[in-house]
Amino acid sequence: MRQRLDFVTIGVRDLGASRWFYVDGLGWEPTLDLPEVVFLQVGHGLILGLWPAVDMEADVRGAAGSPAQPADDPTGPGAGVPFTLAHNVDSDQAVVEALEAAAAAGATILKPAQRAGFGGFHGYFADPDGVRWEVAHNPGWSVADDGRVTLVPIED
Amino acid sequence: MRQRLDFVTIGVRDLGASRWFYVDGLGWEPTLDLPEVVFLQVGHGLILGLWPAVDMEADVRGAAGSPAQPADDPTGPGAGVPFTLAHNVDSDQAVVEALEAAAAAGATILKPAQRAGFGGFHGYFADPDGVRWEVAHNPGWSVADDGRVTLVPIED
Repeated sequence: MRQRLDFVTIGVRDLGASRWFYVDGLGWEPTLDLPEVVFLQVGHGLILGLWPAVDMEADVRGAAGSPAQPADDPTGPGAGVPFTLAHNVDSDQAVVEALEAAAAAGATILKPAQRAGFGGFHGYFADPDGVRWEVAHNPGWSVADDGRVTLVPIED
Repeated sequence: MRQRLDFVTIGVRDLGASRWFYVDGLGWEPTLDLPEVVFLQVGHGLILGLWPAVDMEADVRGAAGSPAQPADDPTGPGAGVPFTLAHNVDSDQAVVEALEAAAAAGATILKPAQRAGFGGFHGYFADPDGVRWEVAHNPGWSVADDGRVTLVPIED
C-alpha cells in the first residue's frame, strides 16, 4: 500500500452550514459541489470532502439498506477518534490574520494565537461541526518544490 | 485563509502500536520519528501525524499545565466528529490487494472490497485506533501533473 492520502472526508451534521463556512465564509472554491456532497481541493492532489455524517456512516457500514448509525452516536468504530487538521502559514502575524478570517466566517476560536509547544506560534479554531483546525507558523517545517516536506524540531 | 491542508494529525491511544502498524506493518517511511510523535509524508507537501491523544488534546486546550481531557472522553469539542481518510488506487484488483496488505499489517476490515455507492469499487479498514481508511478505485477521479484534481460523478 503506497504511502498516500488522497481524501479527508468529514461527516457533517448540516451540509448547508458546512458549505456556507468553507465556500462563502472562507471563500474556498469547490472542485465538485453537489446537493449531497461538497469536495474542495486543499493541496496537490488532495481533497477535503464534506458529506452528511448519516450518509458517510452508511457507506462505511456497508450493505445498502442497513441502518446507519446516528451521526451523534460516538460509539461507532472510529467515530470517536480525535484528530486535528493543520494549516501552516509563514509568519506569526499570518497566524493572527488566519484566525481572524476564520472567526469572521463563523469559526469558534478554541485557542487564541500564542507561542506553541513545538516552539513556533499557533492557535486553534473549530469549524461548524467542531473540527479542530490548527493554524501554525513552524520555522522547522518546509516544503520543497517537489513536494517533499522537511520537519526539524525547533531548538528551545 | 488559503485553501490548503498541510497536516492531518490523529490522536492515538498507543504510539508504539500506531508506529508498528504504519511503519513496520505497511512499510511507510517516517519523515520524523521521535519518542513522542511520528510524522509520515502521505502526499505532495502533506503530513500524517501520529500523536498520543492526551498530548494532542492538551495542546488544543491550551494553557500549559491545564488538565488534558482523557483521550477516551468523546465529549470534548471535535473529539466525536466522524471522519474517514481515503487511499485511491488504479483498479478494482488493487483495492483487493491494498485491503489484504492492511489486514496483513493488523488492520480490521470494516467493509470488504465491493461495488461502491459512487459507482466505483471500494472497501474500508480500520487502523489500530479505529481510524477508517477507504481504499477506492474511482474512475471519475484523476490528478493532473500539476496536482489539480478532477472529480466527475460516475454515470450509473
